[in-house]
Amino acid sequence: MAESKSVITLLTDFGTEDYFVGAMKGVILSRSPGTTLIDLTHSIPPHDIRSAAFTLNAAYSWFPVGSIHLVVVDPGVGSERRPVLVVAGMHLFVGPDNGIFTLILDRWPAAQMRHLTNSAYFLPDPSTTFHGRDIFAPVAAALAEGKSPIEFGPAIEDPVRLDSMRVERAPDGSRNGRIIHVDHFGNCITNLPAELLPPSTRNSDFIFQVKEFRIRTLARSYSERMHEPDLPFLIRGSAGFLEISLPCSSAARALKIEVGDPVHLAWQRHSQAQDP
Amino acid sequence: MAESKSVITLLTDFGTEDYFVGAMKGVILSRSPGTTLIDLTHSIPPHDIRSAAFTLNAAYSWFPVGSIHLVVVDPGVGSERRPVLVVAGMHLFVGPDNGIFTLILDRWPAAQMRHLTNSAYFLPDPSTTFHGRDIFAPVAAALAEGKSPIEFGPAIEDPVRLDSMRVERAPDGSRNGRIIHVDHFGNCITNLPAELLPPSTRNSDFIFQVKEFRIRTLARSYSERMHEPDLPFLIRGSAGFLEISLPCSSAARALKIEVGDPVHLAWQRHSQAQDP
Amino acid sequence: MAESKSVITLLTDFGTEDYFVGAMKGVILSRSPGTTLIDLTHSIPPHDIRSAAFTLNAAYSWFPVGSIHLVVVDPGVGSERRPVLVVAGMHLFVGPDNGIFTLILDRWPAAQMRHLTNSAYFLPDPSTTFHGRDIFAPVAAALAEGKSPIEFGPAIEDPVRLDSMRVERAPDGSRNGRIIHVDHFGNCITNLPAELLPPSTRNSDFIFQVKEFRIRTLARSYSERMHEPDLPFLIRGSAGFLEISLPCSSAARALKIEVGDPVHLAWQRHSQAQDP
Repeated sequence: MAESKSVITLLTDFGTEDYFVGAMKGVILSRSPGTTLIDLTHSIPPHDIRSAAFTLNAAYSWFPVGSIHLVVVDPGVGSERRPVLVVAGMHLFVGPDNGIFTLILDRWPAAQMRHLTNSAYFLPDPSTTFHGRDIFAPVAAALAEGKSPIEFGPAIEDPVRLDSMRVERAPDGSRNGRIIHVDHFGNCITNLPAELLPPSTRNSDFIFQVKEFRIRTLARSYSERMHEPDLPFLIRGSAGFLEISLPCSSAARALKIEVGDPVHLAWQRHSQAQDP
Repeated sequence: MAESKSVITLLTDFGTEDYFVGAMKGVILSRSPGTTLIDLTHSIPPHDIRSAAFTLNAAYSWFPVGSIHLVVVDPGVGSERRPVLVVAGMHLFVGPDNGIFTLILDRWPAAQMRHLTNSAYFLPDPSTTFHGRDIFAPVAAALAEGKSPIEFGPAIEDPVRLDSMRVERAPDGSRNGRIIHVDHFGNCITNLPAELLPPSTRNSDFIFQVKEFRIRTLARSYSERMHEPDLPFLIRGSAGFLEISLPCSSAARALKIEVGDPVHLAWQRHSQAQDP
Repeated sequence: MAESKSVITLLTDFGTEDYFVGAMKGVILSRSPGTTLIDLTHSIPPHDIRSAAFTLNAAYSWFPVGSIHLVVVDPGVGSERRPVLVVAGMHLFVGPDNGIFTLILDRWPAAQMRHLTNSAYFLPDPSTTFHGRDIFAPVAAALAEGKSPIEFGPAIEDPVRLDSMRVERAPDGSRNGRIIHVDHFGNCITNLPAELLPPSTRNSDFIFQVKEFRIRTLARSYSERMHEPDLPFLIRGSAGFLEISLPCSSAARALKIEVGDPVHLAWQRHSQAQDP
């Protein structure tokens, strides 16, 4: 991992108008000079752990094996919440144990997790307000320099998980989910996996409900729906989840959809895809 | 090009709050590990091809010869619009064939263009919604690794161009143009080349009109006009076009100017600069 | 400094929606190919020299010794204000002489400063509107390539300083300061050094006043105050200054605090910490 340049990605709710991200990068470059630093985003809504969990899951796997992902959405900084390190799917993750790694842990049941207790890898005299700079950044730099995960602290087996990201399967086979993210274009991303509606799905096969809207169109691309600009449709989104979209405008704004809104997906009786 | 580190710049309308840009960078770093990634901007107004064309043209030439410029403002993703590669002015450009390269093609008549058809350089099973990640990023990475443009697909001769970026020359020698960009400081950039008003121009030489405002001052710097804070002036902008500006505030807001607004530049009879 | 990769940080009020930052980075990479470029922020409020001075001071010292910090908040571009280079604390700083380096110069009395007059290191024919690209970026690149500061121009001894960033000590030992920054979370950063209230401080030891609000709580962490969500408190901020904060919301919005607002810190009679 350390022979050539390591990659460290950064995902926070710090915004980009302050010195916070710069200070974290300075700490990393001081301790691991050749490392490549990549911003995932710093615009997670403040303290929104769910949105961070979604974004991390959608982005990390495109990076080279052995990449280190530094995730600091940390409303509990300075409290008892544990700083942790996760090894999963040949990637490394560093951040607070507050549910931010829920989707990673769901995806990789064999993931290993460690409590960051070895202060030899922290900045001296860490503050109680900025663990991103004082604990997580230097730990990520040490990983980039090739330190083994076992050096950072004891293994733990009881990570915090966000139950609100789970899909419920009703007795009739239908699914209850939620909106977990609204993107820059106003697409509303659900937590329903795209596999629930495979490409062969016909529009008559399913009924999707969000708020008072019933959607019965599954589109293959945004552009194919441009002739009906006011009709919301479902699409198998590039992050692997079903998304609600409008052809040329923001579905979130037009339908007044927000993160956390419940969604429901049911199959029609005649369908073969009733119980995937 | 591939012997030392290549540079890939990124220009999109994706915003920076989602996983989109991170996923593209992950794909590139996975396939071309040493590459330097530089964000031009991800804040092009959604689907605004004209603004992207302006920004690309103003930025690319400052980068080292052989740099690769990845431009993804792509309202037609998933439709018949062609993914293309442009070789022009010793730079490489990758993106959709939707007019985004108009100013590059105008500037470099000998530019060569190819249709990206060789799916060996795409991600396996590309989505219909995110060609930035699945087609354009891996093509840029392959170019950074030294692959020759001819490997990516056949040459094409009929690129899409945006006629709305052209300046019209009236029979009396005056010019009709448009506002093509409003910058962070509220300066309004026209598509009139700065050379139309050389540094020797006197204020009595020209009449410039935008909306109901007539501007007859050409300033050398912003600061030289600070004594008249409410008087809009023209300036030879750093991107090579004439700009409308106010000394300490946003000209766009004060004069209610928007992208697309027409502008007119005429010369006074007495002037030697009448017909440049 | 130039043997391995140099680090150049960028701090501007250019925003990230234009080509400005990209053009500066292109110039640097063209002249110093291996250099690592790190954005501190480009979201300094337009022309806000004080906010830039604060952010620079909070960020630079985390970077490796020998890093080059390019600071372009430059309302006087094109006027008589001098372009300068500062060598202080084993870091290098490049930017306009308009007060932006006040906190650096206060911190490092032995700092050396030079007037950038040697146009051999500028772009040919620099514009009067964009010295960031035409003067400061190529100078930073030349420093990254190992050029000595003495090559760029004569030493100067009379830098511009911002008096408004100074804390006043009243005859009774109390301090008069100001709000110098509001961060992404709405924390209001004062110019009062955190050392004025050491960790041993008891809440009865001091009285802090901002606008009509009297604050008598010094918190150790944000999370320890979550049980009283509406009570503003002081905290020793991660940038080394006292900050005004609310547990889960924006103190700036709730208390209507703005940059420039005066603050007052006094000690209670019984306190040992009366006169630090």
